[in-house]
Amino acid sequence: MAEAVGACEAITQVFSLLGKRWSGLIIVTLLDGPARFSRIVQLVPGVSERMLSERLRELAAAGLLTRCVEEGPPVNVRYQLTPRGEALRPALAELERWGSEQLVETAAAL
Amino acid sequence: MAEAVGACEAITQVFSLLGKRWSGLIIVTLLDGPARFSRIVQLVPGVSERMLSERLRELAAAGLLTRCVEEGPPVNVRYQLTPRGEALRPALAELERWGSEQLVETAAAL
Repeated sequence: MAEAVGACEAITQVFSLLGKRWSGLIIVTLLDGPARFSRIVQLVPGVSERMLSERLRELAAAGLLTRCVEEGPPVNVRYQLTPRGEALRPALAELERWGSEQLVETAAAL
Repeated sequence: MAEAVGACEAITQVFSLLGKRWSGLIIVTLLDGPARFSRIVQLVPGVSERMLSERLRELAAAGLLTRCVEEGPPVNVRYQLTPRGEALRPALAELERWGSEQLVETAAAL
């Protein structure tokens, strides 16, 4: 019983963190390696600069990514996953597999 | 390149579907077996009846669950995952594992 509650609590926390629009996609983007703000804006379809800033702050506060400043000139800022963020790789790969098999095919069939 | 776009499209669709509040938890609950509305309300912490109805409709429209009516009396309605919904099990298990290891432990340590 205690375990069931723990699992539910874990998944509740996961969805409250990753369920916000763009958050999952930002993590997926950074799984390919560190990236600058301007690059992430290009790679996450439809996100605004303001929303991206907000999501990056939230994900950094949750310990999923860090903001690395390379002293310049020119100063260069990159966002990079922490080990905690990197640890999402298997889960996101499974979600992506499910989406490719179960959602995109359906969309194509409609 | 086409593959990268496809993967991104898949994960975008996944998060637009499961990223809404309660949706993931409803699926997790139904992975234990079909359940009545009143039981799901108990098992998904904090969801209102109105929100649960809305989410169940959305998830049914996306083909992730079905509403099964057993003719009575008394009439008995159960919600049950389709094979497409059931196919989320490995992805949700991975997310739960990540949440248990990376989020709940941190919360305990704070």
